[in-house]
Amino acid sequence: MRESVNSWLLLNLVTDRSLSQGRSLVEVVAEAVAGGVTCVQLREKTCSTRQFLDEALALKALLQPLRVSLIINDRVDIAMAVGADGVHLGQSDMPISHARHLLGPDCLIGISAESVQDALAAEQQGADYIGISPVFSTPTKTDTAPALGLNGIRQIRELVRIPLVGIGGINLTNARQVIAAGADGVAVVSAIMAAESPRQAAEVIRRELG
Amino acid sequence: MRESVNSWLLLNLVTDRSLSQGRSLVEVVAEAVAGGVTCVQLREKTCSTRQFLDEALALKALLQPLRVSLIINDRVDIAMAVGADGVHLGQSDMPISHARHLLGPDCLIGISAESVQDALAAEQQGADYIGISPVFSTPTKTDTAPALGLNGIRQIRELVRIPLVGIGGINLTNARQVIAAGADGVAVVSAIMAAESPRQAAEVIRRELG
Ligand code: NI
Repeated sequence: MRESVNSWLLLNLVTDRSLSQGRSLVEVVAEAVAGGVTCVQLREKTCSTRQFLDEALALKALLQPLRVSLIINDRVDIAMAVGADGVHLGQSDMPISHARHLLGPDCLIGISAESVQDALAAEQQGADYIGISPVFSTPTKTDTAPALGLNGIRQIRELVRIPLVGIGGINLTNARQVIAAGADGVAVVSAIMAAESPRQAAEVIRRELG
Repeated sequence: MRESVNSWLLLNLVTDRSLSQGRSLVEVVAEAVAGGVTCVQLREKTCSTRQFLDEALALKALLQPLRVSLIINDRVDIAMAVGADGVHLGQSDMPISHARHLLGPDCLIGISAESVQDALAAEQQGADYIGISPVFSTPTKTDTAPALGLNGIRQIRELVRIPLVGIGGINLTNARQVIAAGADGVAVVSAIMAAESPRQAAEVIRRELG
């Protein structure tokens, strides 16, 4: 494993309860972390605030003793309530300026960038890292921007200094290329969430990342 | 009009964009406030965080100079970002304890109570006011608890000291009874939001409240 200041985001798991096949989210995440996931982004799109908060509290209790980062998708209030390590904000979430004002300087803010322009703006506005999305097109997501590809990562890598995480269609077969193109980490959804053994799935991807 | 410390919540408008018939939310709210609405609760259930924030900022700009209170439904982060006067939390939103910790002592926290027990718990946990919901059954909402009725208001009024606002099925014909039963105010959705003239609708209800 390479050691760098950014190794905490080497292998991100982005949650999607619809893929967990009846297993609890905490159960899947615990397995994935045992397999080498270095950062967990809790993403909930349909549940109530109370349920989202309860999931976040459960993941916080699991991850904090293991020194694995917990990032909350979209919801600044949930992140603050549980003392998460950061938030991940898409282009239709709260703008960085408002989020930073609420969260303070120490909370990590990751921004989804769907273009070189998005990435430059995010860095300029004080993002701590950028999620390049999507790297590859994914059959399950139809509402996303065109895939940026490995070339998109190379382009953004030349222009911004903050850490980059690739997301979208990343799995065992292409994870290494994403890092080789200049990303500091990869974010994985279905390749781990939907795996029969999330632990094993995480292990093999982590091994690929070197 | 009776004057009391709680007159700010005499006539609440709870927003519902699906009822605004193509008019912008700000337009309907401006009319309603001109007609006598004393407090606006922004409720959004389906839009993105960015859209919710933009609506909240627009309402804040409208309402602050008029000294009309702005309450944000559910989203503590939106309330903090725009400097709203308060939040309104349902039983599946963030628990008061977490919300108070984030919002501080000066931000109003209203809690929806669907029973006497809910109301007692809300007061005990430090709520600033209680929304008694639903007072009357509403044909458009099928996911609500059984109607508490005017008797429910009387019961809760005897047991709790903080201000009470009735919500659910309240209109011109029954608003006065809700106040007579012990509520400090009424919250209205469709009777104003869906009215051809929100201003006139607010005026007649406000006049009923005396
Ligand atoms: Ni929501």
